[in-house]
Amino acid sequence: MAVSPRSLVLPDPLPLDGGGTFDGVQIAFETYGTLAEDRSNAILLCHALTGDQFVASEHPLTGKPGWWARMVGPGKPIDTDRFHVICANVVGSCMGSTGPASPAPNGVPYGTRFPVITIRDMVRAEIALLDALGIERLHAVVGGSMGGMQALSLAANWPGRADKVLAIATTARHSAQNIAFHEVGRQAIMADPAWNGGDYYDAAGPDAGLAVARMAAHITYLSEDGLTEKFGRRLQDRAAKSFGFEADFQVESYLRYQGSGFTKRFDANSYLYITRAMDYFDLAEEHGGMLADAFAGAKARFCVISFDSDWLYPTAESRHLVHALNAAGAPVSFVELSAPFGHDSFLLDVPALDRVVAGFLQ
Amino acid sequence: MAVSPRSLVLPDPLPLDGGGTFDGVQIAFETYGTLAEDRSNAILLCHALTGDQFVASEHPLTGKPGWWARMVGPGKPIDTDRFHVICANVVGSCMGSTGPASPAPNGVPYGTRFPVITIRDMVRAEIALLDALGIERLHAVVGGSMGGMQALSLAANWPGRADKVLAIATTARHSAQNIAFHEVGRQAIMADPAWNGGDYYDAAGPDAGLAVARMAAHITYLSEDGLTEKFGRRLQDRAAKSFGFEADFQVESYLRYQGSGFTKRFDANSYLYITRAMDYFDLAEEHGGMLADAFAGAKARFCVISFDSDWLYPTAESRHLVHALNAAGAPVSFVELSAPFGHDSFLLDVPALDRVVAGFLQ
Repeated sequence: MAVSPRSLVLPDPLPLDGGGTFDGVQIAFETYGTLAEDRSNAILLCHALTGDQFVASEHPLTGKPGWWARMVGPGKPIDTDRFHVICANVVGSCMGSTGPASPAPNGVPYGTRFPVITIRDMVRAEIALLDALGIERLHAVVGGSMGGMQALSLAANWPGRADKVLAIATTARHSAQNIAFHEVGRQAIMADPAWNGGDYYDAAGPDAGLAVARMAAHITYLSEDGLTEKFGRRLQDRAAKSFGFEADFQVESYLRYQGSGFTKRFDANSYLYITRAMDYFDLAEEHGGMLADAFAGAKARFCVISFDSDWLYPTAESRHLVHALNAAGAPVSFVELSAPFGHDSFLLDVPALDRVVAGFLQ
Repeated sequence: MAVSPRSLVLPDPLPLDGGGTFDGVQIAFETYGTLAEDRSNAILLCHALTGDQFVASEHPLTGKPGWWARMVGPGKPIDTDRFHVICANVVGSCMGSTGPASPAPNGVPYGTRFPVITIRDMVRAEIALLDALGIERLHAVVGGSMGGMQALSLAANWPGRADKVLAIATTARHSAQNIAFHEVGRQAIMADPAWNGGDYYDAAGPDAGLAVARMAAHITYLSEDGLTEKFGRRLQDRAAKSFGFEADFQVESYLRYQGSGFTKRFDANSYLYITRAMDYFDLAEEHGGMLADAFAGAKARFCVISFDSDWLYPTAESRHLVHALNAAGAPVSFVELSAPFGHDSFLLDVPALDRVVAGFLQ
């Protein structure tokens, strides 16, 4: 896969939650805006499961605008005229940071020899990147979905590193239903003979399985109302049902497009590893079983945002998090926004989100 | 696949919504209780997507009790001391009724040469079965999920045939989200090279793809709360996470078990055809776009039951149906029951359901 224009090999071995350390980890990253001389204006932005470092710049494989170009840029809610925004491709991913597709020391891609990583491991790599960049203290750490998990993990495990923590459409632990949907995706990939036990980098790869995984996940990113409004039972480029297995309905055609498009930019093994990291995420468990204890040493101000139509990480999950922050005595503001787009609302046109983000980062 | 102990070849060709007719359709069925001399006590019970005719008797492949043994039997809510219950395996399925696995006239299984069928086609075959059995008028037609679609289709299209119509956990049309989940399952099957364009009956078959399809669907049959209560984040037979891709969590192990067990009793092509029939189901569309018009000639009494935790066919779908029945002037009672099991509540231990069913069928 493509290597990002900017990357850095971490100077020290990366300790992993699964045990041992990982030598020579490369982290690809992008930055936007200028770092102030006193280095006080840095924001670490953390991406979601299938996201990457191309927040506000063209994606090198798809040519599409950055995934949060509407939020990050000059004069935008995360204002690059004021802030220096850093976004790193998470370790385990496939856009330039070390992942299963990267060559192991013997020159052959890791495949499933890659170690299982956690959200905290991802953040550990991001902290090492910040160290290497000489950024000791962040103005804020910001993320949606899995990005929000990283923001919370950073706040809990490196409490001195960020002044503000903005966690959007996220959770402090993956629920049984979340795990179940991820497991379906993993099984779809591993059921594809082209997966070949993870060793497929000299062949076509498990595109069919990965597309099915993406399709299943994609449904969970949208709301039922949103799907109904966008597609309903409308037919795709035809006047009547075909009485066959073509994509008769627009929603079928859309899902197939999402599935096949995804395989052009994402590595199937990375999908396995990153979903596993999310499933393992349980911030309370890491801290003796009490979520409030995770934030006992937190010094940051928190802002938690949920969306009323998000059924993947519903508002109840955010409320659970906010109660724990309250119990830990951390200053936290919480807002549930109304938006029709389900979990994906954090990526889409929700003006109220822009206002809350801009206000909190002031 | 197994042939049911009881079956009947329809005497006339079956007209199909997709056009043409289908000759020599075999319908496998089971009956429970004795038909009264005046033939007034028959209840047609319609099964769901992956159900079959073995309502209250042992499944010949799995050896498990019938899928509604708790509801149907002597002294039970559908009381076989009083009623003669008939349940037919739907056309397109794989438990003895003609489906894609059946031999075509040339002796080779139909595979994808089988015609795409609709819910109304299934009911047309059931009506032909009733005709052949000499049952002109049903005391009731009863069904949950896809069985409820059949009950509604019978009421709309053969309004003289049933005195009572009991539709449980169902809908008058498949939503975009419903279609989307089915499409994921179909793509999982068709992505499996062993599917081989539907021509696999002399080989192992697309078990891996079918298992993934079942896993994805199974999540939609349960509620998030139910999953959390049943599994939470509990680990499967181990003290700590394995940091690998084994089924660490109980919910993963359960889903894998559901997926692989399903492949032992169900034909992948049948899964394609029956999900397609459900996706095509839109009772309003069949009747000029107005759901109330579908019931304009209805003479039956209706009872509609939904479950508060069912997110596959949520209460709003039942309410939509009830409004249409009201507009058509049909007598209808409607109840939303509280039960924690999601869509599958209609199959599980919900005493309030038993009372409503027994009361309505009095």
